[in-house]
Amino acid sequence: MSLLKAAIIGGGHIADQNHIPALKKLSDQVEIVAVCGRDLNKTRLIADQHLIPGAFDNLESMFNSCELDLVVNCTPNNLHYDYTMQALKNGCHVLCEKPPAMTATEARKMADLAIEKGKILAYNFQRRQTSEYLLLKKLLSEGQLGEVYHIKANYLRRRGIPGWGNFTNKTIQGGGALIDLGVHILDLALGMMDYQTPDKVVGNIYDFIGKTGGKGLKGQWDPAKFDVDDACFAYLTFPDNKSIAVSCSFALNQKEEEIINLEVFGSKAGAVLNPISLHTEVAGELADIQFPFLEETDTQLKNTKAFIDAILGKQTNICLGEEGAVLQEIVEKIYLSAGL
Amino acid sequence: MSLLKAAIIGGGHIADQNHIPALKKLSDQVEIVAVCGRDLNKTRLIADQHLIPGAFDNLESMFNSCELDLVVNCTPNNLHYDYTMQALKNGCHVLCEKPPAMTATEARKMADLAIEKGKILAYNFQRRQTSEYLLLKKLLSEGQLGEVYHIKANYLRRRGIPGWGNFTNKTIQGGGALIDLGVHILDLALGMMDYQTPDKVVGNIYDFIGKTGGKGLKGQWDPAKFDVDDACFAYLTFPDNKSIAVSCSFALNQKEEEIINLEVFGSKAGAVLNPISLHTEVAGELADIQFPFLEETDTQLKNTKAFIDAILGKQTNICLGEEGAVLQEIVEKIYLSAGL
Amino acid sequence: MSLLKAAIIGGGHIADQNHIPALKKLSDQVEIVAVCGRDLNKTRLIADQHLIPGAFDNLESMFNSCELDLVVNCTPNNLHYDYTMQALKNGCHVLCEKPPAMTATEARKMADLAIEKGKILAYNFQRRQTSEYLLLKKLLSEGQLGEVYHIKANYLRRRGIPGWGNFTNKTIQGGGALIDLGVHILDLALGMMDYQTPDKVVGNIYDFIGKTGGKGLKGQWDPAKFDVDDACFAYLTFPDNKSIAVSCSFALNQKEEEIINLEVFGSKAGAVLNPISLHTEVAGELADIQFPFLEETDTQLKNTKAFIDAILGKQTNICLGEEGAVLQEIVEKIYLSAGL
Amino acid sequence: MSLLKAAIIGGGHIADQNHIPALKKLSDQVEIVAVCGRDLNKTRLIADQHLIPGAFDNLESMFNSCELDLVVNCTPNNLHYDYTMQALKNGCHVLCEKPPAMTATEARKMADLAIEKGKILAYNFQRRQTSEYLLLKKLLSEGQLGEVYHIKANYLRRRGIPGWGNFTNKTIQGGGALIDLGVHILDLALGMMDYQTPDKVVGNIYDFIGKTGGKGLKGQWDPAKFDVDDACFAYLTFPDNKSIAVSCSFALNQKEEEIINLEVFGSKAGAVLNPISLHTEVAGELADIQFPFLEETDTQLKNTKAFIDAILGKQTNICLGEEGAVLQEIVEKIYLSAGL
Amino acid sequence: MSLLKAAIIGGGHIADQNHIPALKKLSDQVEIVAVCGRDLNKTRLIADQHLIPGAFDNLESMFNSCELDLVVNCTPNNLHYDYTMQALKNGCHVLCEKPPAMTATEARKMADLAIEKGKILAYNFQRRQTSEYLLLKKLLSEGQLGEVYHIKANYLRRRGIPGWGNFTNKTIQGGGALIDLGVHILDLALGMMDYQTPDKVVGNIYDFIGKTGGKGLKGQWDPAKFDVDDACFAYLTFPDNKSIAVSCSFALNQKEEEIINLEVFGSKAGAVLNPISLHTEVAGELADIQFPFLEETDTQLKNTKAFIDAILGKQTNICLGEEGAVLQEIVEKIYLSAGL
Amino acid sequence: MSLLKAAIIGGGHIADQNHIPALKKLSDQVEIVAVCGRDLNKTRLIADQHLIPGAFDNLESMFNSCELDLVVNCTPNNLHYDYTMQALKNGCHVLCEKPPAMTATEARKMADLAIEKGKILAYNFQRRQTSEYLLLKKLLSEGQLGEVYHIKANYLRRRGIPGWGNFTNKTIQGGGALIDLGVHILDLALGMMDYQTPDKVVGNIYDFIGKTGGKGLKGQWDPAKFDVDDACFAYLTFPDNKSIAVSCSFALNQKEEEIINLEVFGSKAGAVLNPISLHTEVAGELADIQFPFLEETDTQLKNTKAFIDAILGKQTNICLGEEGAVLQEIVEKIYLSAGL
Repeated sequence: MSLLKAAIIGGGHIADQNHIPALKKLSDQVEIVAVCGRDLNKTRLIADQHLIPGAFDNLESMFNSCELDLVVNCTPNNLHYDYTMQALKNGCHVLCEKPPAMTATEARKMADLAIEKGKILAYNFQRRQTSEYLLLKKLLSEGQLGEVYHIKANYLRRRGIPGWGNFTNKTIQGGGALIDLGVHILDLALGMMDYQTPDKVVGNIYDFIGKTGGKGLKGQWDPAKFDVDDACFAYLTFPDNKSIAVSCSFALNQKEEEIINLEVFGSKAGAVLNPISLHTEVAGELADIQFPFLEETDTQLKNTKAFIDAILGKQTNICLGEEGAVLQEIVEKIYLSAGL
Repeated sequence: MSLLKAAIIGGGHIADQNHIPALKKLSDQVEIVAVCGRDLNKTRLIADQHLIPGAFDNLESMFNSCELDLVVNCTPNNLHYDYTMQALKNGCHVLCEKPPAMTATEARKMADLAIEKGKILAYNFQRRQTSEYLLLKKLLSEGQLGEVYHIKANYLRRRGIPGWGNFTNKTIQGGGALIDLGVHILDLALGMMDYQTPDKVVGNIYDFIGKTGGKGLKGQWDPAKFDVDDACFAYLTFPDNKSIAVSCSFALNQKEEEIINLEVFGSKAGAVLNPISLHTEVAGELADIQFPFLEETDTQLKNTKAFIDAILGKQTNICLGEEGAVLQEIVEKIYLSAGL
Repeated sequence: MSLLKAAIIGGGHIADQNHIPALKKLSDQVEIVAVCGRDLNKTRLIADQHLIPGAFDNLESMFNSCELDLVVNCTPNNLHYDYTMQALKNGCHVLCEKPPAMTATEARKMADLAIEKGKILAYNFQRRQTSEYLLLKKLLSEGQLGEVYHIKANYLRRRGIPGWGNFTNKTIQGGGALIDLGVHILDLALGMMDYQTPDKVVGNIYDFIGKTGGKGLKGQWDPAKFDVDDACFAYLTFPDNKSIAVSCSFALNQKEEEIINLEVFGSKAGAVLNPISLHTEVAGELADIQFPFLEETDTQLKNTKAFIDAILGKQTNICLGEEGAVLQEIVEKIYLSAGL
Repeated sequence: MSLLKAAIIGGGHIADQNHIPALKKLSDQVEIVAVCGRDLNKTRLIADQHLIPGAFDNLESMFNSCELDLVVNCTPNNLHYDYTMQALKNGCHVLCEKPPAMTATEARKMADLAIEKGKILAYNFQRRQTSEYLLLKKLLSEGQLGEVYHIKANYLRRRGIPGWGNFTNKTIQGGGALIDLGVHILDLALGMMDYQTPDKVVGNIYDFIGKTGGKGLKGQWDPAKFDVDDACFAYLTFPDNKSIAVSCSFALNQKEEEIINLEVFGSKAGAVLNPISLHTEVAGELADIQFPFLEETDTQLKNTKAFIDAILGKQTNICLGEEGAVLQEIVEKIYLSAGL
Repeated sequence: MSLLKAAIIGGGHIADQNHIPALKKLSDQVEIVAVCGRDLNKTRLIADQHLIPGAFDNLESMFNSCELDLVVNCTPNNLHYDYTMQALKNGCHVLCEKPPAMTATEARKMADLAIEKGKILAYNFQRRQTSEYLLLKKLLSEGQLGEVYHIKANYLRRRGIPGWGNFTNKTIQGGGALIDLGVHILDLALGMMDYQTPDKVVGNIYDFIGKTGGKGLKGQWDPAKFDVDDACFAYLTFPDNKSIAVSCSFALNQKEEEIINLEVFGSKAGAVLNPISLHTEVAGELADIQFPFLEETDTQLKNTKAFIDAILGKQTNICLGEEGAVLQEIVEKIYLSAGL
Repeated sequence: MSLLKAAIIGGGHIADQNHIPALKKLSDQVEIVAVCGRDLNKTRLIADQHLIPGAFDNLESMFNSCELDLVVNCTPNNLHYDYTMQALKNGCHVLCEKPPAMTATEARKMADLAIEKGKILAYNFQRRQTSEYLLLKKLLSEGQLGEVYHIKANYLRRRGIPGWGNFTNKTIQGGGALIDLGVHILDLALGMMDYQTPDKVVGNIYDFIGKTGGKGLKGQWDPAKFDVDDACFAYLTFPDNKSIAVSCSFALNQKEEEIINLEVFGSKAGAVLNPISLHTEVAGELADIQFPFLEETDTQLKNTKAFIDAILGKQTNICLGEEGAVLQEIVEKIYLSAGL
């Protein structure tokens, strides 16, 4: 089989550290033929470092010059829609960074176009690939959890407002803690509940700490330029009476530096992550189960592989366009409920 | 000053173990002159044990026979309304067991009648009197928490469906985990937010475990007779953008046998209970504060004392009729939101 | 149904504290009509304290005076055989304290006579009734352990030579750590392996600490009068290639004050006691299972109940005469292997 | 003094990582002049990497070409005997990897030939050189343990069947857990008891997990090719009434990933390893002693040094041919007892 | 032997709870014939409760009425001197509560008079009788500590100013933390160094917290009436270059509620108390020794017994008059050094 | 601004590892133009490694050849005085390693000359720059500690006599544990008390372990050449009744390998270091405060920066000549008090 030809859109840190290395480890299936970035000099530098032949500073010339099978879209949130649409129109499969887009409408259009074009549109929710989440899904599919009816999804930092990048800029990012952190854990929770669309969404967002300033544990942010949510709490209910409570924060007055967790409550057993444990009955007695030997895995590699496999027609656990659209709609509803 | 004359309505466990002993410790302010219960023999027994002169099996004869200043209503939930109304009409102050009533309308009428009669109507939310909660309120009033914007209120048992009493009978109790456990913690949370009325209430209730059966840690319940909620999750938002997430359960597949907790998030500091700790900044550094020497107190004694002091015209932290009405309305809205 | 008539043989501590209270809690099935002890005055005292009508100082007169259905033999080890045989001959069911006897031959004769007489002969291995062991057996019967092929059975005390009674006197006890402690844990181990007779038995016994003296944690023993084993280690193999390693001690230079444990190794899972945990695979991953809510039970009451139920024809887990004979034979072989 | 001339037989991992580096650190006493391996190209590569002049693919030509004082035999178990005998015949001292041989007869012949030739034959039981074991031996020689009468020797892995090499191949290895892991800990235990020959040896071997397959923590083994013991338990008694219990496994359903331990019971004190602690009496009171500052050492370097020093006529703690023969005989008896 | 006749001077809590019960447990050696207290009614009550025949409200009449062998002086500190002197003059042995007196001169006179009269004068430093201190002394006498050259003696409470009694009244007590708590631990430290007289004494006393008030953990004290030291630090050097650092407090801003400890530094080993551990070398390695099985003892009973035995001519570890005089002199020097 | 020109005196480890790297990180303010060491070859080597142009083996030629603004004096203790005086005379600012000098007189002269010459003389007490100490000072300046009245300053090693350098040589070092370790922690303690001169100083020094030998945890020292203090305890009182207790050791029979700590007792709060915690009252309750997110800093860089800033006229927390003179005087008084 000949190699799939890939291009990277966006020449920043996440391309350099995550996506390019992952694709290169899959060199029996794919080769990177081009990188496209805003600054041609920087882009060429990255291309050279990774031995990638093509370097471009606009998509059009890249699509004109190269025969591409797929692109990875690593641009800022406000460019996800445009570049992904362009790539799909040019007949490429797309792996797009999260969140899907700035609005629910955009995400819906992206999903529709992918279907129309018969291409794989996938989002890089690589936390789906942790050993713990894969085990959790296996426990679910084996029926060991029974029916899962409530999930608490938490991604909470005490003082983790990033002191770099555009994370506190609403125009570029579209939001704060919810759109940067919350989407990860919401994606995982939805994945435990058939990725249904909720019938009620209510939530609140806050910015007390972000606007006040203080000690930063992920660099020092500028409170004067902070215009996103530093914390968001939301509650979703589903038509079949299931429910999800989402809590996420860049900054919150809690004890822990960072909590990333799912608390899953099922009719037969409950489970929590980090580390994963199961709370159930064994031989008629209440029992707690630990899994002390789960090994960490390269989640980006696994997710990129899942994308490639999806292109090749296999069933994988990659987040596809449709799921991205559902997710984006929920995010939008939370922000709307919170009065934005 | 002459002693206040008190009567106990309901001759069960909670009268015998909590209310009568508390009143007797306040013998410089109050004397118990009568007990009224369904079964006259049992009632007389209790009266004799506690050296209480009067024993009755109906309210009318009690009110006819005794000059009463106050009554304590320790009857099942479905009798709170009738007996409290009767007592108020007979010119008594009333300390009524929680929850206030079976419906929001009842609770509202009770509050209105108390005001009309110029009597104190109070509910026995004695968890307000723990050292931890009193300290939490003091921290709030001193401004050490800043503005409190989100609270998680949890009262979660793993397998704590009571195997005795009427706790699983909806007709008598009016509900399950929410109405028996959740109201306690909801009362505490509301007390941290000026006991406002929320503008949105959404929630879900479940009964998977209660209806299936299994190992009981508070006696063995009968799943065939279980018709209440074994778990309830709800989310409240307030007009000023504050929010409360309530989680309560009789039975839930979690690790802990029982979690009773508030997680309070304020603009200056956050706090959790059990044990209480404060998460804030001191001298510009992130700091955690513990209070290792808080002593336990007799919360029932303190609450009864607060009720007596309220009768005597003092400002106390007792839960009054108005707050009870707000609370009952929220409970009703949660059950409605959950489709009941 | 009329009550079973019971007598107690031996008026010592274990009768007073364990057997008589257990029988009295079963007053709907059995009544104690007599106690027989060496010293008539002391025996009468005990009888009076427990409101037992008859007090005797020899078996013959007791059997002549009373119509008995069952006896409990609580005498020293060297009297187990004679009194149990006499009781069986007098048509009684017998619950005999452990160990069964002083020799394998005695234990065999006891078992044979019981069968001949159609009576229940049972030994008071009440550790069979702990919640942990019952759960272990349930796990075994559910197949969760797979095939159990090796067990380590440990009953090890650091300095637990009893400073009272006859525990260090070989003539009365028949042995030391093995016959007093080891038999308990050996009984449990054999119970996990169908109580087979081993084909090889090898072991060693020691008395270094017992004969030297030192700090006692269960009273102070007299090293000059110590003539039993203070420690015993043995290894048993069975015809189907299963194996058991037994370790027991009154005194051993180890860290722990006392270790009472089974380590059970099966093809699907392993388990240890105190507290019980299971080591297995769940969903393809290595998993450890805890049971944090096992409640303690009154093991003597449960064992006495099992004996009564066996008399009434029910299937119970009581240690019957045949198992006692197998056990006593193993004990004898260990002592023989150790050169005694 | 001129340097001793050394050759390495076997060019695998253990030569490359352990023996060659150790010898090179002793460059003031020894120089490596040749390596002999099956594949000449690979052997030359290793020789070049370590700057060793000679590379051979058969022993004969090596012995013909080089004047050698000593060889290190790092070949698979089934070649230990032949190559060691050849080396001894060629007048070399030999440091042979463990286990000594495939049979007791081989090990005996090796020991005899070494004596006949006046050469040092040593086995690489490098665990003798850990700080903990050296301290344990010192405590023994100072009399602080009194008389050591029982030892439990454990080398137990939960899922440690190697997924590489020939560890599960009986023809090449001669056995499984016992011959690969058990010999280490058995060597240590025997070293605490004057390396006596036991008068009774009984044991069992198992292969349930090895033959079934499952999660591997040291690579993934192939159950279809597994024909050795995955677990072995054995019990040895000695003419002076001492005893050793050996437990070893590649795979066992236990909690711990790996247990390597001696539990030593002496008349004055007991000791356990990992970390080492002593359980004894001090000033008449029961006392536990820890040694928190023992440093780790390069056990291979120390063992190689002990071998060199033995050649130079010094008294060292190296395992000599005679001890190897005793050990191999025990291993053989265990396998025989287990019915192989 | 006829029984020693004893009287109790002072009818307070310490007589009732400590001294009378201890003497009654020694009823084979001593009988209590009288109690003397300020208030005759209260004294008679205590006498009756303990079945003591005589009750007096002045010493003279007691000495006139009773033939006494010994008295126990349980009066407030400012009465120790007068009553002890009177008792000695009346030919009684005296066990006097600590501290010995209000001044060094008094304590010296008490010691001298006891010698002149040939009577035992002892002080009730009952902490000498803890298992830990007795073991520490044994380790010292066995030479296991080598030469002890420095001791830190600590008796530090965070908020332990007594809310009852006269502990904060300098006129009655003579001082605060030093004279109430510090003397205990100073006595223990001096006992490890031959109870030498120091050549230099320097110290400081403080009363910041005592005079300010705050949360009390031993009742609530009145800062307005607080005129003693709430904390005292001192340093003693001895002619042979040994040294002791004393730290004691009723109130100090430390983490622990209470620290009672000796830290003993010797040339061979060091030791700390609570729990006792030894830090030394064993077999050439640094070693820490714990004593996990030390049992608690009735220190008052042991100390009273030591006093009785001293009367009977035995060598005991009771604190005698001479040691009390040395101690009181040091206390005085510390207060002088601190500028009082 | 032109760069300050710096020279390093002393070419040992501390220059190479600490001072030169720190200065090079400040290359926007300072450039190193010369190194002066005893051995010209070694000095040139160091100069070359760090790209420093000048290398000298005597101060005179260095001062003649180079225009210097500042020097860093990294010579052994007994050369601090001479070289620092020479540098000051040559118009240089000086950062001198600790301790200031061998005698109080020397330190006084150094301080005087610096003032006379108008140059910054600073000592390298870089522990002032730890995050914990800086926070402690901030808490003090904010008044959160109230009045600090007693400090325990501890720098205690169990077996930390250095096995290299001149640390055990009194002629070169001027002392042992006190002058090498104690001065650090004494400097920190004095810094919490306005660096007052004490009115009383008493202390003791010991050398039991140093002179006896034993296991070394910082290399192996030679007891035959050990002529300094291995432990020192001292007590200082100040005119305003404050006090400091100093404890330091190279070797002491304690549990911990190393304790470096301040225990600070103030009227409002107390604090300890490693990790820093605060013990105080919050909202009227006793409270403990932790600071879990303090980050470690490069203390040498910060101290060198403080020295440079002082040269540039800024207020910094560097230890200046006057403080060094006070400190050296205390050290001298302790040694005198101890009889040296």
